[in-house]
Amino acid sequence: MKAAILGATGYTGMILLRLLSEHPEIDEIIAVSSSRAGKSIKEIDPGVYTAVKNKTKLTGGELLSVAEAAEMQPEVTFAALPHLESAKICAPFFEKSVVIDLSADFRIKDPLIFEKAYGQPPERQDLLNKAVYGLCEIYHDEIKTANLISNPGCYPTATMLPLIPVLKEFGVDGKIVVNALSGVSGAGKKAVFNNLFVERTENCGAYAPAKSHRHQPEIKKELDIALKSAGRNGDVNLFFTPHLVPLKRGMEITTIIDIPEETASRLSDEALDKLYTKYYEDSSFVAWDSGRLPQTRDVWGSNSCRIGWKIEGRSLMLFSVIDNLVKGASGQAVQNMNIRFGFKETAGLRVYGEL
Amino acid sequence: MKAAILGATGYTGMILLRLLSEHPEIDEIIAVSSSRAGKSIKEIDPGVYTAVKNKTKLTGGELLSVAEAAEMQPEVTFAALPHLESAKICAPFFEKSVVIDLSADFRIKDPLIFEKAYGQPPERQDLLNKAVYGLCEIYHDEIKTANLISNPGCYPTATMLPLIPVLKEFGVDGKIVVNALSGVSGAGKKAVFNNLFVERTENCGAYAPAKSHRHQPEIKKELDIALKSAGRNGDVNLFFTPHLVPLKRGMEITTIIDIPEETASRLSDEALDKLYTKYYEDSSFVAWDSGRLPQTRDVWGSNSCRIGWKIEGRSLMLFSVIDNLVKGASGQAVQNMNIRFGFKETAGLRVYGEL
Amino acid sequence: MKAAILGATGYTGMILLRLLSEHPEIDEIIAVSSSRAGKSIKEIDPGVYTAVKNKTKLTGGELLSVAEAAEMQPEVTFAALPHLESAKICAPFFEKSVVIDLSADFRIKDPLIFEKAYGQPPERQDLLNKAVYGLCEIYHDEIKTANLISNPGCYPTATMLPLIPVLKEFGVDGKIVVNALSGVSGAGKKAVFNNLFVERTENCGAYAPAKSHRHQPEIKKELDIALKSAGRNGDVNLFFTPHLVPLKRGMEITTIIDIPEETASRLSDEALDKLYTKYYEDSSFVAWDSGRLPQTRDVWGSNSCRIGWKIEGRSLMLFSVIDNLVKGASGQAVQNMNIRFGFKETAGLRVYGEL
Amino acid sequence: MKAAILGATGYTGMILLRLLSEHPEIDEIIAVSSSRAGKSIKEIDPGVYTAVKNKTKLTGGELLSVAEAAEMQPEVTFAALPHLESAKICAPFFEKSVVIDLSADFRIKDPLIFEKAYGQPPERQDLLNKAVYGLCEIYHDEIKTANLISNPGCYPTATMLPLIPVLKEFGVDGKIVVNALSGVSGAGKKAVFNNLFVERTENCGAYAPAKSHRHQPEIKKELDIALKSAGRNGDVNLFFTPHLVPLKRGMEITTIIDIPEETASRLSDEALDKLYTKYYEDSSFVAWDSGRLPQTRDVWGSNSCRIGWKIEGRSLMLFSVIDNLVKGASGQAVQNMNIRFGFKETAGLRVYGEL
Repeated sequence: MKAAILGATGYTGMILLRLLSEHPEIDEIIAVSSSRAGKSIKEIDPGVYTAVKNKTKLTGGELLSVAEAAEMQPEVTFAALPHLESAKICAPFFEKSVVIDLSADFRIKDPLIFEKAYGQPPERQDLLNKAVYGLCEIYHDEIKTANLISNPGCYPTATMLPLIPVLKEFGVDGKIVVNALSGVSGAGKKAVFNNLFVERTENCGAYAPAKSHRHQPEIKKELDIALKSAGRNGDVNLFFTPHLVPLKRGMEITTIIDIPEETASRLSDEALDKLYTKYYEDSSFVAWDSGRLPQTRDVWGSNSCRIGWKIEGRSLMLFSVIDNLVKGASGQAVQNMNIRFGFKETAGLRVYGEL
Repeated sequence: MKAAILGATGYTGMILLRLLSEHPEIDEIIAVSSSRAGKSIKEIDPGVYTAVKNKTKLTGGELLSVAEAAEMQPEVTFAALPHLESAKICAPFFEKSVVIDLSADFRIKDPLIFEKAYGQPPERQDLLNKAVYGLCEIYHDEIKTANLISNPGCYPTATMLPLIPVLKEFGVDGKIVVNALSGVSGAGKKAVFNNLFVERTENCGAYAPAKSHRHQPEIKKELDIALKSAGRNGDVNLFFTPHLVPLKRGMEITTIIDIPEETASRLSDEALDKLYTKYYEDSSFVAWDSGRLPQTRDVWGSNSCRIGWKIEGRSLMLFSVIDNLVKGASGQAVQNMNIRFGFKETAGLRVYGEL
Repeated sequence: MKAAILGATGYTGMILLRLLSEHPEIDEIIAVSSSRAGKSIKEIDPGVYTAVKNKTKLTGGELLSVAEAAEMQPEVTFAALPHLESAKICAPFFEKSVVIDLSADFRIKDPLIFEKAYGQPPERQDLLNKAVYGLCEIYHDEIKTANLISNPGCYPTATMLPLIPVLKEFGVDGKIVVNALSGVSGAGKKAVFNNLFVERTENCGAYAPAKSHRHQPEIKKELDIALKSAGRNGDVNLFFTPHLVPLKRGMEITTIIDIPEETASRLSDEALDKLYTKYYEDSSFVAWDSGRLPQTRDVWGSNSCRIGWKIEGRSLMLFSVIDNLVKGASGQAVQNMNIRFGFKETAGLRVYGEL
Repeated sequence: MKAAILGATGYTGMILLRLLSEHPEIDEIIAVSSSRAGKSIKEIDPGVYTAVKNKTKLTGGELLSVAEAAEMQPEVTFAALPHLESAKICAPFFEKSVVIDLSADFRIKDPLIFEKAYGQPPERQDLLNKAVYGLCEIYHDEIKTANLISNPGCYPTATMLPLIPVLKEFGVDGKIVVNALSGVSGAGKKAVFNNLFVERTENCGAYAPAKSHRHQPEIKKELDIALKSAGRNGDVNLFFTPHLVPLKRGMEITTIIDIPEETASRLSDEALDKLYTKYYEDSSFVAWDSGRLPQTRDVWGSNSCRIGWKIEGRSLMLFSVIDNLVKGASGQAVQNMNIRFGFKETAGLRVYGEL
């Protein structure tokens, strides 16, 4: 099978190259870069080139333009492109390829909410309803037949995997407070002062707090859907505050949610263990542990999400970690491809974190 | 004036050596280490030795035992010793020296709460009521005449400086959720696996969440006092969750507190600016800014605490940063000395963070 | 095939667990730890446990004692144990298992040189001549039939892969100066002050310079062999100086060697390219590039060694990078197993560095 | 006294602001930035603003243009500007102000060597002979009367302080090999990919090796002068190879030099100790230790250079560390001012490294 990667030289694109180099079902990788078309992957990363050499025979390892890639008719296209550009650039692929879009362009179906978050209306409103939200463990069935998969962001993935089962099972009383820690690669490969080594090492702090982060609406919308799908009323009142910490890769989420009085009596370590078993028993990538808080290193380089918790009266604290570039981006994209094409769901993906 | 440092070779002791080397009112430094008595400061850190050479004439830069130091009759004694050992080791100094204790041994006056947090009753119950809690900006007047000053921990300092004025002015509705990020030096100089470079770099996570952290009672107790002193009823319901992040030094606190309906109408950026002006106008070390969230680098190496905030309806988010080894430990100890002895409050301390 | 890992909870042991979890020819992993026997791999690292669960059916993921492991008769035994202990602990395995020893215990065949470097004579002089030095690309043929393979250290591996072909082809005039940069994991998982995060971050420096590093004799001995095997006279005069830098994993070697006048006329970029082609054309793990100096990230997590160079008159500078825990330890050990048992040489190993 | 800082918002400019904020002889600081003129220092760093508030009364903390600054007639002007721009921008200050230039524009007096290193002839050849090379401990007397001081680069400073006395005393046989490790701030505050956190953390490597680094000629020229001044013949054959390591600040230099046979019999630890005593006894900032190799943390944030060594036959290894932003740039600039204006040489500078 042929896979195209649009935006192959960014961080998520480069991770996709690595993951697909080991993927047993992908024979040919078409690497695309508008800004560096004509150059070789070898110039970008010689080790990665070695890894994909046998899978880039049609292109000789050369980076193609979008138009050239479209002509090669890949069966699956990964779009690792900036928000607000992706939907436009992907146009030549929607018809003949399964598109897995890692940008935010198809994540919010309501054009008004989209515009509020991103400052302009969605580019392709015609495709919004076709797009399936690719949070693999939650939308597994829908993904199987989707031709446009909107890959979730790293913050939403890490926040929602522990939270959705809780919301459905117990509901919520009052606001949900989420504090997130993110590695610097989450900001993408951008040569701006704020991403410099000297600015970020020995430094950390919060940004875009409470309801001002642009990915807050994506999370809130999905939590509202979860609540409604369980027959519960009301809107989620979400306070989401990200913090930048001096990690290259990694994301940790600390959530506090109050359980309503009517369901609180059921809240226990055993009940949570049972709950996650119900939701994630068949998933290779979600793991939980009542007696141990997860650390980002547990999942560094892997497609896993690890969950821990602490009950304090009616308040429940949830802790989750992912690798923002893998389960938070490229790894989940590959997982989506695996589900969509009926491959083994773990193909090309790791479950353990690097030392 | 002569100053003794008990536990001079730990992280806080070594910072005290550096700070006192530049302090205009200290002529003689007596460095004490039980485990390394007889050795020279030069062996520990040759640069620091150069800095204190002229202030260690009586000892020739040698590390003394506790007994030897007591005989030298320092006017002020800094105890940078482990919790549960400090009160015992300081015994020879209580009579003739002002003691500034950086451990937890005198921070909690209620023996039952102390025992719950630390697993044993306080060593010197007879001195508990004599001890003044050395949160400089709050207990300024009490410190002036204290002979035993209990220096606050880093988590309590960074949490309470922004929070106490808010609690007094507006009160609180429901629980207070505090998420803390701490650099690794906060764990002290201990050769344990958990503190190794390989374990901590590219890694972060929460520990001792909700109400299980041993410094949680110290914070809660002081917040209760603040609430009561403002004529408000009730107990503070504090969820305090620390996270270890790969910083050498630095601490960031993100707090969310709901303001009661009866005072919420007064909540505004201007009101907070006015409030902090009222409390901290005369302080050189507390700074605030409504339009900018602080980063730990703002205060690296300094004795400053910087505060930011975000109002979202009745919910108020507070952000504060300190250097855990300076304002969170040794710097505040020097500030306490400055206040107690009538020195210039900023003597020997910096207000700016290192690049 | 059954593989035992002695010392499974150290850094190299944990990497071996990860690598074998993905190895297509290993069905059963026997993890051994003297100090933690009886505990589960799950306690050490839950993600790794998930990865090896299906390969630890006989033990249920439990860590065994050495004696228990010996009874299970593994076909291959990896000894990831401290120098001077390994040869002793491995005793029960020498007869019935191929032993791949990652310690220094069998690296130096001359007992006097060994004693000079390690302060005591080698434990098992009887086995010294049986042991094959497992520098895969150089001793490929000998490894194929070896039952005791002495896995090289990280410094020797990274130093010798670029240097041996040069020595053989051109000889050497005067001394060879090697400066090495090493990540902190090279020191092993030891809870000592020198390995603490606070000591190592934002800090670097040289240690054990010139001829005082304990692995210097291992390198010198192999370089002497190379020189002699090419029919050249004389001893190598090696100045090897390691530096500790704040990396978790990674090693960079900068070498300067003067080429004798009689061969210097042949020295050119083309000649070096040809030379490395001759030696490493068939190797998947050694790569070189005349126009680009390698960086440690090129090989992070991989079993690759990347080489660059710069010619300045008769002086040749060589630059090489490896991941000290993979090609410098556990990865090369797996490569040795692959060669010994006739598996695909790249089985279970990666060629690209992690982003 | 009034001091101007041209380029106040770069890394060296920001360090100058910090240092001058504590300098007892500077009353007024004029901060200059072409690109950010009109903005306040407060926007750049609020803590630094607090520190310099009382010393920026004439400007209210505002960043000025070059022309505005020139009108204020500072007695001393620090130029923290890019190479090849500095000499031009400083034009209005040469007449009436002592100029301390941190760029390379006046470091090489020979226009041909300058052009070879920097690709164009020096801008102000008329001033080249007037400029004094501000390596404080070596050119102390010349600096006292200089009106144009060319502040050395960080690599030259750290390389030459240990090496010049050795060259003068013992001479040299054959080539000198210098391997340098530099923190990332050495590259300046530039928003380029190569300086990003994600590129530099967990990564290191050599660049511009052997004789290709642009600061190599600056070092070679000064070493030639040293050799000649001691009545020795010949040119220095210098191999200088820098390595980028994941430090924010810090520089380590490892040098190997062979001592000629005729002087080698005098080489000993005692002789070196005596030699450095002769050269640096009166210096507060140069320290040496025969039994201990220095680490960059020894001098982090300080203006100190620490030296260690190892003798191996006729070969001498030298080890030196500085903070590249302080002794390697802004601190040495302040030291130059102190010498030039007859202030205490240590005024405003620290001798100890930060923990």
